[in-house]
Amino acid sequence: MTLIRFIEIMAILVGAFSGFIEARRKRMDLVGVFTVAFIAAFGGGTLRDILLDRRPLFWVAHEEYAILIFVLAMVASPLMKTLRHIVSERLIVIADAVGLGLFSVAGVASALDAQMPLFIASMMGVITGIFGGVLRDIVCNEVPMVFRDGKPYAICAFVGNWLFLVMGMYGVPHDFALWSSALFISGLRLLTWKFNVQVGR
Amino acid sequence: MTLIRFIEIMAILVGAFSGFIEARRKRMDLVGVFTVAFIAAFGGGTLRDILLDRRPLFWVAHEEYAILIFVLAMVASPLMKTLRHIVSERLIVIADAVGLGLFSVAGVASALDAQMPLFIASMMGVITGIFGGVLRDIVCNEVPMVFRDGKPYAICAFVGNWLFLVMGMYGVPHDFALWSSALFISGLRLLTWKFNVQVGR
Amino acid sequence: MTLIRFIEIMAILVGAFSGFIEARRKRMDLVGVFTVAFIAAFGGGTLRDILLDRRPLFWVAHEEYAILIFVLAMVASPLMKTLRHIVSERLIVIADAVGLGLFSVAGVASALDAQMPLFIASMMGVITGIFGGVLRDIVCNEVPMVFRDGKPYAICAFVGNWLFLVMGMYGVPHDFALWSSALFISGLRLLTWKFNVQVGR
Repeated sequence: MTLIRFIEIMAILVGAFSGFIEARRKRMDLVGVFTVAFIAAFGGGTLRDILLDRRPLFWVAHEEYAILIFVLAMVASPLMKTLRHIVSERLIVIADAVGLGLFSVAGVASALDAQMPLFIASMMGVITGIFGGVLRDIVCNEVPMVFRDGKPYAICAFVGNWLFLVMGMYGVPHDFALWSSALFISGLRLLTWKFNVQVGR
Repeated sequence: MTLIRFIEIMAILVGAFSGFIEARRKRMDLVGVFTVAFIAAFGGGTLRDILLDRRPLFWVAHEEYAILIFVLAMVASPLMKTLRHIVSERLIVIADAVGLGLFSVAGVASALDAQMPLFIASMMGVITGIFGGVLRDIVCNEVPMVFRDGKPYAICAFVGNWLFLVMGMYGVPHDFALWSSALFISGLRLLTWKFNVQVGR
Repeated sequence: MTLIRFIEIMAILVGAFSGFIEARRKRMDLVGVFTVAFIAAFGGGTLRDILLDRRPLFWVAHEEYAILIFVLAMVASPLMKTLRHIVSERLIVIADAVGLGLFSVAGVASALDAQMPLFIASMMGVITGIFGGVLRDIVCNEVPMVFRDGKPYAICAFVGNWLFLVMGMYGVPHDFALWSSALFISGLRLLTWKFNVQVGR
């Protein structure tokens, strides 16, 4: 398994896991748990692809990820109790930060492929990174967490997306720009989490 | 009028009716009643077509159904009181079960037409069958009923969709596979309703 | 600056302003304020374009409007207090009515361009005019205001859209039909506001 495939799966699992937790908290049944996990994992990329009119969607091209979440949803209830003992909050935050970095920058790259102007491309990256959680919270009838907790989650993605765009303008090789920006976002997110940074309202 | 057209209209009316009831319960005005009924009737198929990038949408190709709901919304308030006396809950559940079967399997067939892999096709069928109600509940600011009532509504559709897919794999004629799977879903739904089956959380 | 560009900017600003107010009322942070303002300003046209499968989206083709809202969101908090003193409710209602007229009729024209049948085109116009507010309220976890306040907001748009369609049928020149219908909607909206007209439930 290549590194990128491993990170991808980790990021999807973390997204789905956030959906499991939220759906259980709302006392949803099996159908709800699966759907909310699916939306949390793939919602951001799906919205971006619809806005860009790109097909096939990520989870259509990679059917195996959809099946993975389906299987996990079926075993989620007993697993959840075990997982909460094994998986520390720290591990979840780290995996989530890695996912945020990777997916945001990948979203910007997709948008550039589709000839989007720079500012729009930077926004598409943020949408990819955060709208899974936004749609999860809407389906669960909550005001989206990322819009109200005052933590610089989307802002980390936005800043790192611009780092990627600026490196592109100055002719930095694409792969280096992509990996270093993703790393920058993940690192910035972890730093702001560690020091509990709040953005003013 | 052909049989399929009759079933189609019945299923759309039942979807719209669920929207009328929910919108009235939320004390919505005329605009809300129409919009929620429209979303409940066509939301599932519309979401599927957007995900598959298919156009024209069902209610664009069949403008007459959109007009029908528009007219019904205008007369809904007085009609509702009368309808509640005439239409028993049993009749609504039956019409809804018939609609679930027909639309779910039709959704799978659409997805196969669009070259979707099997698991994705089975999901597209479920989306077609249930997301009208999901979007209706989101607009009405509720956690979607189908995600929390523990009744095997989506699961009946999912099982029947696979029956349809498996029959396709074994070379069963398309029309027979379609009708028998739709009938299977409707029957399974009615059985689980009659015996008040609950799926474990 | 042409007149239409000026009206467009005013209408977008009014939409965004409604998003700022709603997001602040829900105690959202900077990311929430920007996103909700963006959705309120562009949500209706974006939904219409997705339903019609038209690209590029309005805010992709006019990146400058997206940047404008981004900058405004950053200075919204201090501005809001000042703006509330300068900007009377009357001015907001007028700008909003002008926007409703212009965007609704423009939505109908887009739909006709895309070969939509007449009733669907009239609905697409209403969607363009009102769904920014609907999506704003859904993200803010409210039942959409336009579905429950009993004021003929969407209805004004609907009637004016048909005026535009009927003028088209009778060979009235396109530009005259467009401007007079937009003016009709704006005027009707302001009249119903002034006399506090309520539509029966």
